[in-house]
Amino acid sequence: MITRHSPPVTRHPFDPASILAGDRRALARLLTQVENGAAEAALAALFPHTGRAHRVGVTGAPGTGKSSLVNELTKVLRRRGQTAAIVAVDPTSPFTGGAILGDRIRMRDLAGDPGVFIRSMASRGALGGLARATADVVQVLDAAGFTTILIETVGAGQSEVEIARTAHTVVVVEAPGLGDEVQGLKAGILEIADVLVVNKIDRPGAEAAVRALRSSLEIGHSAAGPTDAAAWMPPILQTVATRSEGIDELAEAVARHRAYLQETGLDREQERARLAADLEARLRDRLFAQWQTRLGDGQYRRVLDKLLKREVDPAGAVRQLLETAGT
Amino acid sequence: MITRHSPPVTRHPFDPASILAGDRRALARLLTQVENGAAEAALAALFPHTGRAHRVGVTGAPGTGKSSLVNELTKVLRRRGQTAAIVAVDPTSPFTGGAILGDRIRMRDLAGDPGVFIRSMASRGALGGLARATADVVQVLDAAGFTTILIETVGAGQSEVEIARTAHTVVVVEAPGLGDEVQGLKAGILEIADVLVVNKIDRPGAEAAVRALRSSLEIGHSAAGPTDAAAWMPPILQTVATRSEGIDELAEAVARHRAYLQETGLDREQERARLAADLEARLRDRLFAQWQTRLGDGQYRRVLDKLLKREVDPAGAVRQLLETAGT
Repeated sequence: MITRHSPPVTRHPFDPASILAGDRRALARLLTQVENGAAEAALAALFPHTGRAHRVGVTGAPGTGKSSLVNELTKVLRRRGQTAAIVAVDPTSPFTGGAILGDRIRMRDLAGDPGVFIRSMASRGALGGLARATADVVQVLDAAGFTTILIETVGAGQSEVEIARTAHTVVVVEAPGLGDEVQGLKAGILEIADVLVVNKIDRPGAEAAVRALRSSLEIGHSAAGPTDAAAWMPPILQTVATRSEGIDELAEAVARHRAYLQETGLDREQERARLAADLEARLRDRLFAQWQTRLGDGQYRRVLDKLLKREVDPAGAVRQLLETAGT
Repeated sequence: MITRHSPPVTRHPFDPASILAGDRRALARLLTQVENGAAEAALAALFPHTGRAHRVGVTGAPGTGKSSLVNELTKVLRRRGQTAAIVAVDPTSPFTGGAILGDRIRMRDLAGDPGVFIRSMASRGALGGLARATADVVQVLDAAGFTTILIETVGAGQSEVEIARTAHTVVVVEAPGLGDEVQGLKAGILEIADVLVVNKIDRPGAEAAVRALRSSLEIGHSAAGPTDAAAWMPPILQTVATRSEGIDELAEAVARHRAYLQETGLDREQERARLAADLEARLRDRLFAQWQTRLGDGQYRRVLDKLLKREVDPAGAVRQLLETAGT
């Protein structure tokens, strides 16, 4: 019988230079550690080298052809001399094989190009964990020198909004005939869009979809009050990703949005807000963990039991626990 | 010129007895205070009277006919001698007038019945805030003695999952022809479903939708490993809400799920997990607020500035801040 040992943790010691020099195997290895939350030292070492990439979020409901659009956009960016990393995030559970299928098509299209790096991330456990892991993966890819990082997420829920917040520029993808436009559903997601794409415009209902989107945008714009002449108005682009139509215009719009951010200084504001939110989340986690350690398990469980019996209300339970731990 | 004074805050002093006695005007007034986060004392006073209602979450994409279904279910529950409160939550932004339209139809259907109470909540500001406010509103309605509380939410994102967590029983509504089933999108939401409904089964594609749902369920079930014979298998119901078809069966399934929870003791486990999560969220908020007060604003901003200049990495910033505040 063969006894199996886990490999020693020092087997692949982290070398920031290898990442900065573009070593792809070192990069893939580090990203796995990052996803497992076991790369704090590496993230700290790479942090000074971050902040240069253009982070572009691409989101939209399933069936809009988001992945094909990201692939085509990547090819155009490459022709324009950029390098690109794609982070495909699926916040829905690994219940179906959708992500794997999408990856195969993607690999066939883009594999072999040394200026392209692809990473898929599926939800494992808490969603908050996925958003954090995604942000960390993007940091590493930024340090690794990719000029554009495309963060692709499924759907239109809060999770995607959180992940998109990592981006400088958010592209929202729609398609005709998905039934959404009737409901005015896209409300929440329209507000985060910097560039709108109606993909599959060779399909029936395309004109109606574009019209509906335009009027939603105008309502939102006027609801926001009198607008600054310099304000960014999200353009609505029309594409057929499977035939590479409209992709140059999309790359243009994305580049224009970045220039707009830089000229107005909004990129600095964005960056500050992003780092502040990240800092606060980390502090909250740490403060709670420290407090729990001080308190001990038994006391926490006793108060929870009283809560369950309705002997104390939630606000009272908080007071009791904070007093006990002498905070 | 008439000088306007804001009404004194003591104008409607809170009287728990009025809520417990079923005073609807007092209830409506209190719920507004709860939504504004200004009812801590009232929530504490009512807390001992909570924990009796059956909390039923109803969720599904727009266009599935969720609201009509909730209305019809309410009528059936009323005929069975129950009282019902409906909390309609729209986590998408108030960009469109969808919620208001839905409310009008609802009011026409159910207004005038003293055993029914309806409350709509739209997202204002942070989503976390909406989930908290919804949980508090449900608490008050529970204390007010409604036997069933129907929590209706739009969509399938993380926000809805969080709000549905407030419920004992989660009903997920689908409809044919929305394009979702093709994509196997419902993954995340299937996992939280206790009862599945395919509404609008008079429409084309109904059979395919039911079949797709059944096979997704079976995959999920077998993926979960060998199952306990006593485990709950979500039934798939077929309804046409606009013609009141299948609603009795839905009410049955919801009642059966509640009985199942009670017989297995899962209802106590659920309640404990819910209260524990609520307690933790409150503690995190309080600990962070206390810490911020101790630290002072200037110090926080200085570290954030260093972070922005990449002079310190995020983990290092956390260490510096925690040391400064002597935690």
